[in-house]
Amino acid sequence: MHTISETTQRGVTERAVTIAGPREPVPGVLWTPEDADGSRPLVLIGHGGSQHKRSPNVTALARRLVRHHGFAAAAIDLPGHGDRTPPDERRMSLRERQMRLRERHIADGGHQVASARAVEDWRATLDALSARDEIGAGPVGYWGVSMGTRFGVPLVACEPRIEAAVLGLFGWAPGPRLAGYDDLARQVCVPLLFLVQWDDELARRPYALALYDLFGSRTKTLHANPGRHVEIPAAEYAASEAFLAAHLAVPR
Amino acid sequence: MHTISETTQRGVTERAVTIAGPREPVPGVLWTPEDADGSRPLVLIGHGGSQHKRSPNVTALARRLVRHHGFAAAAIDLPGHGDRTPPDERRMSLRERQMRLRERHIADGGHQVASARAVEDWRATLDALSARDEIGAGPVGYWGVSMGTRFGVPLVACEPRIEAAVLGLFGWAPGPRLAGYDDLARQVCVPLLFLVQWDDELARRPYALALYDLFGSRTKTLHANPGRHVEIPAAEYAASEAFLAAHLAVPR
Repeated sequence: MHTISETTQRGVTERAVTIAGPREPVPGVLWTPEDADGSRPLVLIGHGGSQHKRSPNVTALARRLVRHHGFAAAAIDLPGHGDRTPPDERRMSLRERQMRLRERHIADGGHQVASARAVEDWRATLDALSARDEIGAGPVGYWGVSMGTRFGVPLVACEPRIEAAVLGLFGWAPGPRLAGYDDLARQVCVPLLFLVQWDDELARRPYALALYDLFGSRTKTLHANPGRHVEIPAAEYAASEAFLAAHLAVPR
Repeated sequence: MHTISETTQRGVTERAVTIAGPREPVPGVLWTPEDADGSRPLVLIGHGGSQHKRSPNVTALARRLVRHHGFAAAAIDLPGHGDRTPPDERRMSLRERQMRLRERHIADGGHQVASARAVEDWRATLDALSARDEIGAGPVGYWGVSMGTRFGVPLVACEPRIEAAVLGLFGWAPGPRLAGYDDLARQVCVPLLFLVQWDDELARRPYALALYDLFGSRTKTLHANPGRHVEIPAAEYAASEAFLAAHLAVPR
C-alpha cells in the first residue's frame, strides 16, 4: 500500500493510496482519526455504478464514521470506475457511461466475472489495511448499495473478517443474469441493514424484497422509504452509521 | 380527569387516572418527569388486542420517553380491555378471550363502530391531558401496533393535534371487514414509522405492505424484521423512541 497524499480536516486524516491489486494497482482513499493510534473498527464503503471512491455519499459517510466513532473507513475505485475509467469513457455523459458500463459488463463475462474481480480488489485492500498499526485486526463492516450490493453480497458471503453490513437498492430474480447470486445471499449471515427505495425504478420493489428474504442473517432489518433509486433520505445515512457503530464498536 | 394514585420511581411519576369518557369513565395511566413544570411533548400509547394500559411494552416505552426525553406519555384501557374487561371474561384464558373479543367485535357492529368508540375515548383523553399545566399544547405523538394501529389509523387521520406516529403489525386488504379503512390511511399525512414483522402470522406480509403503501405521509419509513407477530426486536423500541423524539422534540 502506497500513500500518494495526506490531508487532515476537522480531525479526519484522509489519505489517497494505491493498493497492490491482483491484476492492477487499485486507487483508494483511507479515512482515519487524526493521530490515530492502535487498532480500531474499519468500514469498507462500496460505491454505486458510475460513482467512484470520492462520491459525495461515500466521503460523507466515511467522515462521520471517523468523527463520531473513531472508526477507520476506506473506499476504492471498483474496476472501470473513477481513476480506472477507460480513457475513451472519460468525456462521456452519465447516460452514455451507464450504457457503456452495461455493455462492458456483458462483454467481460457478466455478473460472476465482475464480482470475482471486485471481491479480489476488496480482499487485497482489506489485507493491506489490516497491516496498518492504526487499523489492525479490529472488526470490519461493509456499506454499499446498488452496485455496492451487487458486489457486496459476494464479498460479505466469502470474507469472514466482515462482521456487519449495510446493503440495499438491489434485487434478485431467478434467471441467468444473476446466476448463483441467491446462494451467495443465503451465505450472508452477519447482522444486516437492508435499504429499499419504495419507488425504485432500477431495483424494483418485489425483487428487492425477494433479496432481503434470501439473506441468511438472523439479525436483518429492512428500512424502506418512498422515493426513487438515488433518493435515499438523509435519515438512512444516520441509521447506517448507528447500525455499524452498534455492531462494530469494541467495548472499552 | 381524576387522579386515583401517584407513585414516583427513578424520576418518573406515574399516575393512575380516570378520564371522563363520552360513554363511560376511561381508566388511564399518565407518566411524566418528576416535578414536571410547563408544557412538553406527549405520546399516546395504544395497547394491542387482549393487552391493557400497563402491558410491559407500553409501560417500558412510556418510561423511556419520560426518562430520556422529558416527554409525557399516556395509555388508556381501550373498550373491553384491562379494567373495562366484562366480568365474565376476566377468568378466561388468553385464547378464550381472543375468541370472545372477535365475537364481541362483530356483535358490536364491527370495525367502524369499534374505531369510533376508541377514537372518542382517545380524544377525550387528549382534551383532559392538554388541560394539565405539565403537558399543555405541546406536540403530540402516537405509538400503537396491531390493534393499536387498527384504532390508531382512524385516530391519527382525524386528530390534527397528532404530529407523528409509529404504527405497524396490521394490514389492509379490500373487502367489507375494513371498509373505509383505506381512505383513513390515505388521510394519515404525519411523519410515520411503520413496523412489519416479516413472518407475521396475523398481519400477513402483503397486507402489511399494502397498508404502508396507502399512507399519505411524505415521510414514512418501514422497518421490517424477521419473526412472528409478537416478536418485535428491542432495537425497534429504540428506533420508535428515536423517531418520536426527533419529530416531537421542541427546540430549546
